[in-house]
Amino acid sequence: MLTPQEIADAADLIRPHIHRTPLVYSPTFSAMTSCEVYLKLETLQKAGSFKVRGAVHSILRNRTRIGTIGVVAASAGNHAQGVALAAGIAGVRATIVMPVGSSVAKQEATRGYGAEVVLVGRTLQDSITYASCLAERGAFLIHPYDDRDVITGAGTIGSEILDEMRDVNYVIVPVGGGGLIAGIAAAVKGAGSQARIIGVQAVACDAAYRAFAFGERQPVRPGRTIADGIAVPIVGEQPFRIIRSSVDEIGTVSEDEMIQAILLLLERKHLVVEGAGSAPLAYLLSGRAVFPKGSRIVLVISGGNIDLPLFQRVIHQALVARDRSMTISVVIDDRPGSLAKVLGILAGAGGNILEIIQKRDEKGLHPTEIRVEIEIEVRGADHQQRIQGDLLSAGYRLR
Amino acid sequence: MLTPQEIADAADLIRPHIHRTPLVYSPTFSAMTSCEVYLKLETLQKAGSFKVRGAVHSILRNRTRIGTIGVVAASAGNHAQGVALAAGIAGVRATIVMPVGSSVAKQEATRGYGAEVVLVGRTLQDSITYASCLAERGAFLIHPYDDRDVITGAGTIGSEILDEMRDVNYVIVPVGGGGLIAGIAAAVKGAGSQARIIGVQAVACDAAYRAFAFGERQPVRPGRTIADGIAVPIVGEQPFRIIRSSVDEIGTVSEDEMIQAILLLLERKHLVVEGAGSAPLAYLLSGRAVFPKGSRIVLVISGGNIDLPLFQRVIHQALVARDRSMTISVVIDDRPGSLAKVLGILAGAGGNILEIIQKRDEKGLHPTEIRVEIEIEVRGADHQQRIQGDLLSAGYRLR
Repeated sequence: MLTPQEIADAADLIRPHIHRTPLVYSPTFSAMTSCEVYLKLETLQKAGSFKVRGAVHSILRNRTRIGTIGVVAASAGNHAQGVALAAGIAGVRATIVMPVGSSVAKQEATRGYGAEVVLVGRTLQDSITYASCLAERGAFLIHPYDDRDVITGAGTIGSEILDEMRDVNYVIVPVGGGGLIAGIAAAVKGAGSQARIIGVQAVACDAAYRAFAFGERQPVRPGRTIADGIAVPIVGEQPFRIIRSSVDEIGTVSEDEMIQAILLLLERKHLVVEGAGSAPLAYLLSGRAVFPKGSRIVLVISGGNIDLPLFQRVIHQALVARDRSMTISVVIDDRPGSLAKVLGILAGAGGNILEIIQKRDEKGLHPTEIRVEIEIEVRGADHQQRIQGDLLSAGYRLR
Repeated sequence: MLTPQEIADAADLIRPHIHRTPLVYSPTFSAMTSCEVYLKLETLQKAGSFKVRGAVHSILRNRTRIGTIGVVAASAGNHAQGVALAAGIAGVRATIVMPVGSSVAKQEATRGYGAEVVLVGRTLQDSITYASCLAERGAFLIHPYDDRDVITGAGTIGSEILDEMRDVNYVIVPVGGGGLIAGIAAAVKGAGSQARIIGVQAVACDAAYRAFAFGERQPVRPGRTIADGIAVPIVGEQPFRIIRSSVDEIGTVSEDEMIQAILLLLERKHLVVEGAGSAPLAYLLSGRAVFPKGSRIVLVISGGNIDLPLFQRVIHQALVARDRSMTISVVIDDRPGSLAKVLGILAGAGGNILEIIQKRDEKGLHPTEIRVEIEIEVRGADHQQRIQGDLLSAGYRLR
């Protein structure tokens, strides 16, 4: 177990190099849950996630050992950027091994922090293997979670939370390899707080959830998830020891729940949050756990590094799921003015047109007809029905 | 002129009802400018912008006068939400007049805070006229900027900044009607700070810029701008008096500069910022003003209420402008496997495909040919050239 002193020492060591991130109250999420909900915004941390805390701590603690040999890490995401930035801060060389297909934006960001990026392997596991080879030849390996110094660095989030809110009742934390929650749990429980520590995983990759339930680490095969930051096939050995003793509960959330949570954080807090970072809010709103009225809950919003194309698709899907975007398909005469008439009806009904696609030569269409697909921004399900009703009563055929 | 005491009283009055928003350091923007750059995040304010400060202050100060008659305001955006929320906080009725074509999302948000939304007029000016009528019949009108209480409420941002950073050198603030900058300037200068206060307008609607330069308020015809929050055709009378005496400079920014600033805030700080809120960063990075090395600069990020469809288009345009997204148009044989071959080349070059559109029957195409438009996410201009080169050397005709 990590001692409170170790975490306090880590906080002192890394303080000059990292941001103390804000803990902000959310009236909206509080009202939705009859609790007091606060967000710990690691999206505003350097390099956009909590990862830099562990990386800076590990490098500073091992600086003499690292010397001129530099550090190496394998990651497809936040850990890559965290280590690259931390190495820059500490003035040591960094080699980051990333899978060949990893996000271009994340590769660029990692290079931007001054690290050398090496693309090796199809999967993260291949990259890890290669990074281990480099470590055997002398480089200092920084593991993303299964490392005492990294866990201790992440734990500084827990002490920052307690500094500002001694009487917190719940801290909800995303879980992948388990380093983040292990550090926070050690910090919070070690300080004598009664707060319950709750972990959240994507249901598509729930290794820690299963390990916690069965008392034993076992690998899972990761499914498709937007929470790439916590899609880790097996919980780390060292984190799991702390999780068993200090975490109170681990739950899971679906992809849809995370998509809606991302949209909520965007619309209500104007924050860009990656899949993993949305998991605590998704869990809080899922109703899968009961929180007594008035509980003080901190959600650890672990990071904001989501690729823009994915982010755009997530927003779009969330709007569709909430009936805020609809696509109507209407058959019209293929002559001037027909489309204008349809658009006039939509304008009258207050629908904001996002995209129009016109199709000819489809099965079931008369040669003098065309079909038009129109994507519209609407207020909700009632508004959708009203728009459909308006078109039907004007005599249009909807598909 | 507002006195320091008035602003301190306002801060005491509204403190229980608003958020003290975080002031966060930006290493990236600091490195880009060789200065120390901080962001005052009113995007994290209640209702997503600074507007609630003035509205709460005005309502609380005039509560007995308001009694049961309620308040009225005209706005197409942030002021609508700010007044609606403030009225809810103070427990008074609110009627918000919005133009007929105003954003559905903003109407819904305003209703969501418990206000009655009345759609009147094509332009904001029509809505203002109608709101004035309601005020003459007895409701208490809350002007968005030309009001002492509203200006004083906004000024509390200035005192919060000084509280945390006594030795700030520059505060850069978006300017529309002028209420925000007038309040901040009065607070900062009134407290004896030497900080220079700089206003920023969209070049498409630069009434305050002109008024400041010519020493006289004059209306402009607002052009098209993403900064709808500051597209005010004439600077307010009361704000202008304070601006003349206490603001040091007003500059302008282009649409492209704001679009790039929005993308930077999104990618580097994971913040969603509306056009107006991006103007200070856009100005800082424009090079249009010179800041001595090491200056401590606070950018007031005034709000984050940008409609999602607009936000999505802004992101897309910013990526295109930075050569991070390209659309290639390639002519291929109309037979199975042709498109797959092109996509294989793109995959080999590391381009991430975002969208594909296939076109037949175009002028200049042989009947056995089709043209394909492919939108690709790329790393930058070099990567674009490499992809084009790969296609050309494989014998493809690019359009």
